[in-house]
Amino acid sequence: MVPKLRRPLKIGILGGGQLSLMLAEAAMKMGIETRILAEGPDAPVAQVFAHCTLGSVKDPASLRTFFSQVDLLIFENEFVNCEVLKGAARGLSVEFIPSLDTISQVQDKLTQKEWLGRLGVPSADYYELNPEYSLEAEVRACLEKFNGQCVLKWAKLGYDGKGVMPLASGKLDWVRIHSFVNSAKERRSRVFAERKISFKRELALVAVYSRNEEFHTYPLVISEQKEGICSLVYGPAVALGVDQRLEQQACHYAKSLAKALSLYGSFAIEFFETDENEILVNEIAPRIHNSGHYTQDACATDQFENHLRAVLGVPIGSVQHSPGFAMLNVLGPKAPLGEEGLTALPKPSSNTYLHWYRKKQILPGRKLGHLNGIADATRELPQLIEELKVIEQDWIKQSFDINVSKKGENECLRPSL
Amino acid sequence: MVPKLRRPLKIGILGGGQLSLMLAEAAMKMGIETRILAEGPDAPVAQVFAHCTLGSVKDPASLRTFFSQVDLLIFENEFVNCEVLKGAARGLSVEFIPSLDTISQVQDKLTQKEWLGRLGVPSADYYELNPEYSLEAEVRACLEKFNGQCVLKWAKLGYDGKGVMPLASGKLDWVRIHSFVNSAKERRSRVFAERKISFKRELALVAVYSRNEEFHTYPLVISEQKEGICSLVYGPAVALGVDQRLEQQACHYAKSLAKALSLYGSFAIEFFETDENEILVNEIAPRIHNSGHYTQDACATDQFENHLRAVLGVPIGSVQHSPGFAMLNVLGPKAPLGEEGLTALPKPSSNTYLHWYRKKQILPGRKLGHLNGIADATRELPQLIEELKVIEQDWIKQSFDINVSKKGENECLRPSL
Repeated sequence: MVPKLRRPLKIGILGGGQLSLMLAEAAMKMGIETRILAEGPDAPVAQVFAHCTLGSVKDPASLRTFFSQVDLLIFENEFVNCEVLKGAARGLSVEFIPSLDTISQVQDKLTQKEWLGRLGVPSADYYELNPEYSLEAEVRACLEKFNGQCVLKWAKLGYDGKGVMPLASGKLDWVRIHSFVNSAKERRSRVFAERKISFKRELALVAVYSRNEEFHTYPLVISEQKEGICSLVYGPAVALGVDQRLEQQACHYAKSLAKALSLYGSFAIEFFETDENEILVNEIAPRIHNSGHYTQDACATDQFENHLRAVLGVPIGSVQHSPGFAMLNVLGPKAPLGEEGLTALPKPSSNTYLHWYRKKQILPGRKLGHLNGIADATRELPQLIEELKVIEQDWIKQSFDINVSKKGENECLRPSL
Repeated sequence: MVPKLRRPLKIGILGGGQLSLMLAEAAMKMGIETRILAEGPDAPVAQVFAHCTLGSVKDPASLRTFFSQVDLLIFENEFVNCEVLKGAARGLSVEFIPSLDTISQVQDKLTQKEWLGRLGVPSADYYELNPEYSLEAEVRACLEKFNGQCVLKWAKLGYDGKGVMPLASGKLDWVRIHSFVNSAKERRSRVFAERKISFKRELALVAVYSRNEEFHTYPLVISEQKEGICSLVYGPAVALGVDQRLEQQACHYAKSLAKALSLYGSFAIEFFETDENEILVNEIAPRIHNSGHYTQDACATDQFENHLRAVLGVPIGSVQHSPGFAMLNVLGPKAPLGEEGLTALPKPSSNTYLHWYRKKQILPGRKLGHLNGIADATRELPQLIEELKVIEQDWIKQSFDINVSKKGENECLRPSL
């Protein structure tokens, strides 16, 4: 099935954040005509890429104008209103990849769980809160079901620790719980409770499924979070003590999902590796994902180029990887640096690489960029991870020094990037 | 020596062609503030990169405005008028890297040869034509000196077969020779004759020299030209029968030159491998170069990122490479395809990568893009090179098919990129 398309083919990307920026970087080198709908001139991609239209992904009029200019539409993330998009695209020839049906199946974690169940893919037990019953009663019911410990989650629009709230019997903050559930309601999201999983490690897998039905996986990796935000990713997991069987299972699950949902492009699955040496799906992201950023420097083809190859039906590029690799997210430090902190960039070393998102404001915990590192062997990984952390710490220290010692001056020492 | 710079540091790039485009791609991901002076809106980089100023690199007013906006100035190529640049930068704090002194030493092939001689680096014997003598007498004198065969060259502004004319006794076309020498005069370039070298292969080496005096080389590679235009690059040369001693010599020569000329950044040296198993320098390019494009997909760090690292004094990135690699330039086919040929792009395979320059017109022999390929072993190289050629041929065929069968229609099949 080869689509008929106007020429030259134009790909539209919805959203102007770092994932869109990195997709644009891949499209740039590949010669693909790209148009991007970005929120404003300060959006990461709008600062450097020429073909950005400024407008909200929530505004039907902006969407419609944008859709009329492109042939294929891909997503930076799944946090979109599918009904609004469908309405805005009515009568136009734009094609969404993955389809809006697929996006709506995956963007809701409860619908995700139903799919997972149907496909025999294990995930944590859950309990959907019935909004018609009293919240207190529902919370107590699920705590009872899950032996006094569970995690409350929004079904939709949660990310980076948002939309997640751990609960434990006897330590319930009802004000926070009510506010959490009300926030979900405002987002038209259901709420559910999930059994608190006792896990050894969190794992992640990025897979690519192309419109030619080609399917490939990058290696299973280990990921670490800080306050719900991805902090560190490294691998390959199987060289670090994770059972090969678990990687095989992860790949099998990814393939089942890709085929069942027509989930075209690069996508990610996050897993818990349980104390019982099994994996449970934690979350699915139907798109390029933070846990695959290491592919930019550690793999023959990165997740961004492969996302574009997959949606265009071009052969998926080799997923070969370096023997060891790590990715550290550079997050906004807790102590505010202000505007000044932006003047210096982290300074990579010989085998490490900086990817920087050009955020205009450094907020605590905000993803500002990431550092990738590659190693010739997995035994070098502890040292590599230490190296990444030192680069980040030096950057924070340097930024503070600049702010403290150079305040009010127009010039500053800027020995590096 | 750490320069004092305004913040945030801005790097300016002179010129808007494909080399500038690929530098901009590297700068984008690294978070570097970049400004580019491009010839017009159709320049490759101006089509996609937001911070292009349109203007001529020959126009002192455009240059001055541009220079006032940047801290460091780097070059897409050495085909610039150093006097004009120096004048336009007078009194401004912009720093040229490499310096204009270095550029002027390298941009003139006769001055190059003097440097090479001084450093004991071998290159072909030459004879500078004295413009005060009769051209006929000078040509006959050099043909006599070089046993009836030589190559006439402009000292400046020659590239891709331009500014090069082979001569042989008894087959002299005086009209063309006069025109060749007059074109050189118009460019204020001297003319010289070089002994025609009988060579086995052409080799090339890309090296990186940083402002911290770090020096690294990528592997020696084999290059093939078609009518003076680089067509194919592959390597590593030492795995393909080239003597390891020659690679060592090439690296030694590159290091001598880098240090003697303060040649900061990525730069390239092209060599002849003679029938006597020696290398002679053919040409030096004080910048990122076509013979290093393979580094984008075959090396841990490519020549573009390393160019930026080197001029910023950031540690040079690892030059580790895949066991085998090849790069094929996609040149405009001889039969004109017209505007239509642009609607389809070459379609890479799993282990090959397209880099496309977005040229608005397909002229015969024009560099439109390149295809990089990687291999797990050098024994796979013949097959890899064949694969690259098939991709190019399929693209030409497909473009012709589209032009022939779909002429006048608004829609066309476009199964690939």
